[in-house]
Order: sequence, then structure tokens, then C-alpha cells
Amino acid sequence: MKQFISVQDVTDINQLVKKALAYKADPFADRHLGADKRIGLLFLNPSLRTRLSTQVAARNLGMEAIVFNVDKEGWALEFEEGAIMSGSTVEHIKDAAPVLGQYFDILCIRTFPSLKNREDDYSEMFIHQFIRYAGVPVVSLESATLHPLQSLTDIITIQEDLPLRQLARKPKIVLTWAPHVKPLPQCVANSFAQWVNAWGEADFVITHPQDYELSEQFTKGAVITHNQDEALRDADYVYVKNWSTFNDYGKIYENDPNWMLTEEKLAVSNQAKVMHCLPVRRNVELSDEILDSTHSLVTKQAGNRVWAAQAVLASILQHQ
Amino acid sequence: MKQFISVQDVTDINQLVKKALAYKADPFADRHLGADKRIGLLFLNPSLRTRLSTQVAARNLGMEAIVFNVDKEGWALEFEEGAIMSGSTVEHIKDAAPVLGQYFDILCIRTFPSLKNREDDYSEMFIHQFIRYAGVPVVSLESATLHPLQSLTDIITIQEDLPLRQLARKPKIVLTWAPHVKPLPQCVANSFAQWVNAWGEADFVITHPQDYELSEQFTKGAVITHNQDEALRDADYVYVKNWSTFNDYGKIYENDPNWMLTEEKLAVSNQAKVMHCLPVRRNVELSDEILDSTHSLVTKQAGNRVWAAQAVLASILQHQ
Amino acid sequence: MKQFISVQDVTDINQLVKKALAYKADPFADRHLGADKRIGLLFLNPSLRTRLSTQVAARNLGMEAIVFNVDKEGWALEFEEGAIMSGSTVEHIKDAAPVLGQYFDILCIRTFPSLKNREDDYSEMFIHQFIRYAGVPVVSLESATLHPLQSLTDIITIQEDLPLRQLARKPKIVLTWAPHVKPLPQCVANSFAQWVNAWGEADFVITHPQDYELSEQFTKGAVITHNQDEALRDADYVYVKNWSTFNDYGKIYENDPNWMLTEEKLAVSNQAKVMHCLPVRRNVELSDEILDSTHSLVTKQAGNRVWAAQAVLASILQHQ
Repeated sequence: MKQFISVQDVTDINQLVKKALAYKADPFADRHLGADKRIGLLFLNPSLRTRLSTQVAARNLGMEAIVFNVDKEGWALEFEEGAIMSGSTVEHIKDAAPVLGQYFDILCIRTFPSLKNREDDYSEMFIHQFIRYAGVPVVSLESATLHPLQSLTDIITIQEDLPLRQLARKPKIVLTWAPHVKPLPQCVANSFAQWVNAWGEADFVITHPQDYELSEQFTKGAVITHNQDEALRDADYVYVKNWSTFNDYGKIYENDPNWMLTEEKLAVSNQAKVMHCLPVRRNVELSDEILDSTHSLVTKQAGNRVWAAQAVLASILQHQ
Repeated sequence: MKQFISVQDVTDINQLVKKALAYKADPFADRHLGADKRIGLLFLNPSLRTRLSTQVAARNLGMEAIVFNVDKEGWALEFEEGAIMSGSTVEHIKDAAPVLGQYFDILCIRTFPSLKNREDDYSEMFIHQFIRYAGVPVVSLESATLHPLQSLTDIITIQEDLPLRQLARKPKIVLTWAPHVKPLPQCVANSFAQWVNAWGEADFVITHPQDYELSEQFTKGAVITHNQDEALRDADYVYVKNWSTFNDYGKIYENDPNWMLTEEKLAVSNQAKVMHCLPVRRNVELSDEILDSTHSLVTKQAGNRVWAAQAVLASILQHQ
Repeated sequence: MKQFISVQDVTDINQLVKKALAYKADPFADRHLGADKRIGLLFLNPSLRTRLSTQVAARNLGMEAIVFNVDKEGWALEFEEGAIMSGSTVEHIKDAAPVLGQYFDILCIRTFPSLKNREDDYSEMFIHQFIRYAGVPVVSLESATLHPLQSLTDIITIQEDLPLRQLARKPKIVLTWAPHVKPLPQCVANSFAQWVNAWGEADFVITHPQDYELSEQFTKGAVITHNQDEALRDADYVYVKNWSTFNDYGKIYENDPNWMLTEEKLAVSNQAKVMHCLPVRRNVELSDEILDSTHSLVTKQAGNRVWAAQAVLASILQHQ
């Protein structure tokens, strides 16, 4: 693997999942793989799970991990080509990235969308500029439109749970929109859709209120419905996530509390396991009764972030 | 030791002090004890000594220490059971703690009191919720009402100094209130009182202006007086600390500069050594003349923070 | 070396450069030199290159590096002797420094000038107070008036490039003022002048608009001119940097865009290589056409920060 910014960087999803689960069973199996290697984790936006799990994963491989909160410890970066930098940005990515590329063997970066200009966000300018100038392998810790380490974790968590369910058919996986109090990126939803479609071993349904369509480039292959109850019927895994509108970009049209998942709604499912990437707004996105029940996979899912990151970093170190 | 949030977690104070002083003499004696173990240091409030000394202590034991400033690098946590999270809190401790418990072998957390609601603060809800959901041993880096790593350090510093004084009696230890410019928690004072009382090898006097009573649950066993001069008579150790009111909670009633300790006041003491947990407001809480004199133990005291933390972490790793 | 706060701490510049370039060729040659040693990096002001390169350098020598952003993670420090600390400062350097000196074997500190009181800034009170009370070797990560790790890097970069130029004479090095949008310290310019003069192996010219004189204590030995074109004639290395006024302290008098270096201006030079310490305001201080051309040494220069820091830290560890 030369970089990890979307599912397209992965040759074989199942192989990568297998690798991750092997690390879960034996975290220090490749403890010398990253000896004398250094990984830089750059955050232009805050992070808890992503930062800590990647740091832990790097250490498990013997790498030195250095975290840099660009927004708080550094300064505003410029991404526009040809900019006359007389404003608030202090350093151009063209200057910062190659310097960082000299200090680190692998660079990881998190950068959120503006949610104002869809074309800019969906061009993934920030991470592409970074890759262009860094000169070393780059791993996305969530970009403007995708969150691949999360999605890999999600597939790992489903594959880990699947044998316990003894299904005689493909699992039915439902991605359902949930209410939230502010406009959020589409990243996690886009990325989950992209990965489940690429994986191809599920019946995949996406449900959301009208006007909350996601970009077809990621959802293509899934059944899409505005009827949440119908979507949940016989579902084995329900992935709950809020996102803001894609078409009329970055808005909240409807914040209907009825879309919050409850035990009652889950009754029509096949004892569905419930997933969420965290952080979750309890009793807004998801009810306490679900999160505190055995239906919830969210803690296990977050724990698996370490093994997802470790599998990706190892694949890069091994040029696999 | 299974957790360290108050003196009640300690079976034998003198044994723990001895262990700490052994590490001071030989910092790397147990350098492999924490191999492949990871400690997470979570700060909901700022810290200098506590953070750095705990980080150093962990490294001396061969542990990987990762610092996370929740307030600055992360987001606001919710602690209320059943909260409808439509406000400013982004993640519930019920979701965050078990995830962190999967990433780390020991979790350390600092969280300050509100100084607004005494019942909430004194219930220690934050740290108890954290312990309840973390699933791994928790060490307090200062909580709403106590600061046990500081108090252990204080006892270590006194025990280290005692032989030099050749007293034919128990040492007289005085905890004196000092002026400050803003309302501070009662933690350090509560905790020092709790530890000196539990230790039981001193004549212990607490002195403060009227209306600055501390909670009896911590002070019980000490002589309490509003007469600072009388308290200082024949004192061997004077611990200087400001705290806000406990009864009419979190206020500053009197900020009488006369309560600042001076060399003149110390004249009636037995060449008392002066202690403070730092940071200290010079010439407000304590005069330059004392801090810059040989009476001051504050630098040595702060240095001992490393050995206190190391003894505690080692005890947890050894399940002692 | 016992400390590193200016060129005066260096016995033999060429020897130090040689050491740095040896580390560049073999980063882990002294990987055990700093075993069980700990370095503290304190930032009172933000940093990207300095922080990361010093952290990497320390690790290459086997040292544990701990970063502490005093301004963001800690609190405001007091530096005035005898201050009555009833204002915004929370801890005196007299108390903080000796504590840090107990936690670390080497302390590094970055602290910027106020640009308000020249006498205070040029007395270097902050770093001198820190050194006085720390009790361990101190390395400047940029102080009020100097940036020695940057200047060492600059000399390394020039020496590394020199053989490729096959000059039959001493290289001509030009330090030129550049426009900026806000008043900056004189540190990098002062320090570069001090080091090039101390090195003594160049024809050294400084050019800047009228009223932008630097302090003679650093520039003495250099030719100074207000005519940028004349200065650039036959130049081999052009160091571009903005600084605010020294005489009428900390001002921007003239922000003439004509002083921005362009390819056209460089035409009279000897195919000069262009240097800058970064971050650079593109198309304000320096044009894209230069920064993106082969004339630019800025990325290589920033990469060399690691080897400069490593040579300095190794010299301190070896008491050389």
C-alpha cells in the first residue's frame, strides 16, 4: 500500500481485515516492523479515537509517533495555488508538506470540509495537495469527504461479529440517517457506503429523509429509501449516522426526532446490532436504551480502530 | 493497588513512601515492569508538574505515556446519566471511558470542581463515572475534592526531611490558609489533611480565617484554630495553601494579606520548613523571603512528584 | 557545550557543522548516547519545524523528548524579580524552572520578544532567568533576539551546497529585508548576521530599507547598504527575511512590495541560491517563481534543522 485515503487504495479488503484481526489477537507480532521509523499525525481538526488509536497502532509496530495539532500548536495553512499570502494564513502547504516529509516516514492528516463550498470539499484539495508535496506515504485520518480508517474498522467489526450470527444468507446492513443539532460532514456515511459496496458481501440499504441524498459516486450499488421502518426490517446491522445535505450543500433541513433509532423501531429487525462511529449525541442520535444494551457494537467498534490503523500502517511499511 | 483516588486506596502509607524513596535512589530499578503497557493521561484542566512528573514516572517504569488534553484537543464530555445531549457536550463519559479503557492499561484523569454546586463536586461524580466505565485501573491526577498524588508527595517530602531534624517528639505539622486572588478548590487542603490524619505520626494543626472551615470528613483528627500565630508556635512543617469557602460554597470572603506567611511570623516556629504544592503566587500567598530561603521545601517537594507517581504506578502494575 | 543560546556557546563552528552532516549521513550513529536521558521542550510561542526537528533529533540520540506548550497547556509565567503576583501570571520562573530542571536532563525553551520594550527584549531576561534557575543545560529554541538553531542550520546548508558551486573565491552571502504584513522579531536576522560574522568565511552584505538597521552588536563585520540591487550583484546565497525596526522599536515603517525578491532581481546574482527560515508568506516575502524553482534551498534548509539540533544535543550530552 502506498497511501490510504479511500477504499481504492486497498487491493483486497478481506485480506486487510484478516491482518487487522491477527493484530488484535497478537498486538506485538510485528513489533520491530517500524523500528527507526517515525510517523507524524497532523490534526487540522480535533480528534480523540483517531488520534489515540493510530498512536497506539504505530507504537505496536515499534514506530515513534509524534502528534501535531496544526490548528492549536501551529498556524493556519494556505492551500490555494498562487495565493498572495497577505491574510491570515501563515504557511503554504507547498512549503510545510515537504518539510514534514523530511521529518517523517509516514504522514497522517485530518482535515475537515468547510461545508460551504461543495466543489472545493469534494475535490479533496487539502489532502491531495498534501500528498502531492509530502513525498512520503500519506494516511487519511478523515478528509473532507471520506473517513477510510473508520470504514475499515466498521467492516472489521461486522466480520468479527458475523460468525456469531450464523446467517444462512448475506447480512443485511442498513445505514440510517439520524438527527443531530448541527450540520455534520458526509464523510463517515460516504465512506461506509463506499466500503460496503466495494466489499460486496452484504445486502446494503441506505435510509434517510427526503433531500438527504448522498453522492451517487459512493452510494451506487445500495438500495435507497426514505422509509426507515421498511429499511430496518430483517436488518442484521444498523449503522446510525447524521449527515448534512449534499445537494443544497451543508444544510440541516429537517431535524426530525422521529428519525432517532429506538428499541421499538428495532423490533422489526433481525436482532440487529447497532453501530456508530462515535462521538454520539445520546438521546438525540441514538437512545440510551440502545447504547446501553447488548445490541450496541459501538465500544467494540471503537476498540477496533487500533487494529484497523495497525493493519494499514503495517501494509505501508511492508509495501504490500 | 487497584486504583488511586484517595488515601483509602493505600494499605500502608509508610511502605508506599519507602517505595517512592527507593525509586528516587534508583529511578530505573523497575525499568521493565511496564514493558508493553500504556498509560493515558487525560486532562480536563491544565497541569504542569502533575503531567510531566507522571509522564516521567511512567517512562521510568518502561511504560508508554500518552497525554490527551481533553479540553483543548478533544471536546466537552457529558457526565449526567440520561442527558439529552442537544447542548454543548459532544460525548458521554459512558461512551468515551470504555473506549479509552481499550486503548490503555492504566488511565489517569484530572478534573476540577465547578465550585458552584457543592453536592455535585463532593459526590466526585466525574471521576466515579470515569472509573465505573473505564474498565481499567484509574489514577487521580486531582479530582473535584482531592489531590492524592500531591499528598503522597507531601508525606514523602516530610519523611525525607525528618531525620535531618532529629526531633525527640512527633513533628508538628501546620496547614495554614493563605490569601489568593481567586476562588480555588479545596482539593490540596482536603487531601493533605486526609493523608496526615491517616498517617497519624504527627501533631496536626489546621489554621484559617473564620468561615474557611474545610469538610470534617477530611480534617477530623486535626486541631483547628483561627489563630495563625498560635498555630505556628513550635511548628516543624508549615504547609501553605489557599482554598475557597466550603460552607457557603466556593466563595472568597476575606482575602486578608495578613494571612500571607512571612519570615517574621515563622520566628515562633521551630525553624519550620515551608511547603506548597505550586504554582504559588509570590508575595500574595507566600513571600519571596521565604520561598528564596533555605526554609522552603517547595522545589524538592515538586521534584518528589515523580517518585510518588512512580510508586503508585508500580503498585498498580504489581497488583500490590 | 554547556548551553546553546548564541554562537558564543560554540567553540568551533566548522566542527559543529561537520558533526551535523555526519548525523545526516548516519542518523542513528549515536543512538545510545542519550539513553535514559530526558529532554523537555517548552514553548511559550508556537512552533512547527523547531519543535518537530528537535524532537526527532532527540529521539535519534535515544533521548525521551517531552513537549510542553506552556502557553496552551500550562499558564502564564512571571519573569519579574520581586513581583507581587496578584495579576494574570500564575507561576514565577524562579519556581517553575528548578522543578523542570529536576524532571529533565536538558531543557529547551522558546520565548518571543514583546516588540514593545527593546531594553527588556535585548536583555534576554526570559531565557537568562530560565538558565539561572533551571540547573541543567538550556538550549534556545528561539529567544527574544536570537535563533541559534536556525543559524547553525543555515551555515550547514551553505556549507553543504558550497562544493557544488566550485567558487574560486569566498562565497558572497546577502541578507535581504523582505516585506511582511505584521511586525516580526529581529531574531533570525540578528542571529544569521552573528553566525556568518563569527564563521568568517564569506563576503557578507546586509541590505534593507532605510530605518531598518539591525543592532550593531550582531551586524558588525558586514557591509550594509540600502541598495538591494547592488547587494544582489554576484551574490551566491541570498537569505530573505523580514524584521521590524530596531531603533524606533518594533515598528513597520515601510512595507514596500518592491523589496520582495523576484527572479528578475536575481538576474544580477551568481545564480544565487535563495534561503528562508520558513514559514514564508508566498508572494509577499518571496515570489512563487523563486520558491518553486531550483534556486530555492528552503526545503533542504528546513530538513537540516534535525541535524543542527542533533549536533547541539550530542555536544551537550558529550560535554564537548
